[in-house]
Amino acid sequence: MTSATHETPTPEQYGVGARFTLSVYDSDYVRIILQALGSADATGLTIETDDISTFVTGGEQRILEYLQSVIAAAARSGAHLSAAILLSRGCPGELQCALPPGMRALASAPIELADSGVRARAHWSLYPLLDAGSASSPPADAPAARPAPTDHMAPIYAAIDQSKAEGIYSGSDRYATRLDGDLSAVLQTAANAWIGVGAAVQHVVTHVTVSVNSPTNVDTAR
Amino acid sequence: MTSATHETPTPEQYGVGARFTLSVYDSDYVRIILQALGSADATGLTIETDDISTFVTGGEQRILEYLQSVIAAAARSGAHLSAAILLSRGCPGELQCALPPGMRALASAPIELADSGVRARAHWSLYPLLDAGSASSPPADAPAARPAPTDHMAPIYAAIDQSKAEGIYSGSDRYATRLDGDLSAVLQTAANAWIGVGAAVQHVVTHVTVSVNSPTNVDTAR
Repeated sequence: MTSATHETPTPEQYGVGARFTLSVYDSDYVRIILQALGSADATGLTIETDDISTFVTGGEQRILEYLQSVIAAAARSGAHLSAAILLSRGCPGELQCALPPGMRALASAPIELADSGVRARAHWSLYPLLDAGSASSPPADAPAARPAPTDHMAPIYAAIDQSKAEGIYSGSDRYATRLDGDLSAVLQTAANAWIGVGAAVQHVVTHVTVSVNSPTNVDTAR
Repeated sequence: MTSATHETPTPEQYGVGARFTLSVYDSDYVRIILQALGSADATGLTIETDDISTFVTGGEQRILEYLQSVIAAAARSGAHLSAAILLSRGCPGELQCALPPGMRALASAPIELADSGVRARAHWSLYPLLDAGSASSPPADAPAARPAPTDHMAPIYAAIDQSKAEGIYSGSDRYATRLDGDLSAVLQTAANAWIGVGAAVQHVVTHVTVSVNSPTNVDTAR
């Protein structure tokens, strides 16, 4: 702990990013997925697609704009689709989440997305992580870095209250909160809770499974 | 903390379960998914399917047998599919993960699955959670209940070493470990690490995104 630094890391250095799998329930899925990925603005982002999922890193606002754009483009094909999305911050490595000495939990401004016109339903889970970086190895100059339990629950409750106020909270299922509304509102709620908890906890991950154009929804769609 | 109890909870009381979304990239997806869900043995399990995902609770071995059976049945259609799977333990409620006083982190025997004959590739993440139940509110009789950082990392490393020994470890991508092998070996690796970490940390969640029959894999399939 002799070389403590207080420089603000870039989003990439702090491990800010997304990994998502876009699943299109249609035999024409290759064309629909490639067109959706190709149509989205990738400015300011690093994107890597492999056989399982797509990884995106960059600033929070740009990452979420990209996700919204890809999913909305695929949705406009009319096909039923789901997107399994992981957002992560605070763990730039793989298994070892140690940041350089002196680096603290890094929040960010909330993101804001324009309405997409695409109706989405989602299961959403938020994970403040108990790992060496966040809970057990506070930087030398931050003796109180281990958060009290309410520190990270407060922004989770605030995010859920916010989703209720916006009318997109749709109940609580096992292991997940159900959201229902415009795709942009769904992504914004999940992302801003992830960003908010990130102010108190270094390593925060959120998972969202978004469903669009489900035939199960036809009878109950508002 | 006056009514401490030491009875072992049932898996359902301890919140042991799975939530998964099976995505079939084929216009005949409704038939394939319903047949796969209908063909699997649900003995000993409680299962609820909604418009986004399917929730399963029961013993660990039966839950994983069910997941293997559903995914393998869908895979035998020949369609490309992905399954986004969440396994959770130690948080039976929704947001509040407090267990009755005196209840400790609950491990389980490792699971064991017979080979499925289905080749799977997966991205796998394991989350020991920093919540009130696991990290900050040890039961009154367990003053050392908050694990040292190595307590939960050790089984993670052990699981990865095991996957290397079994030849299914396929590298480390951002936010996820890549597994490649028989569907049963992939699910077994993820589940046994989740169970193993659960011996030291109350609330543990693991996410696995499994890809089967991907056309991207044709050229590189072993």
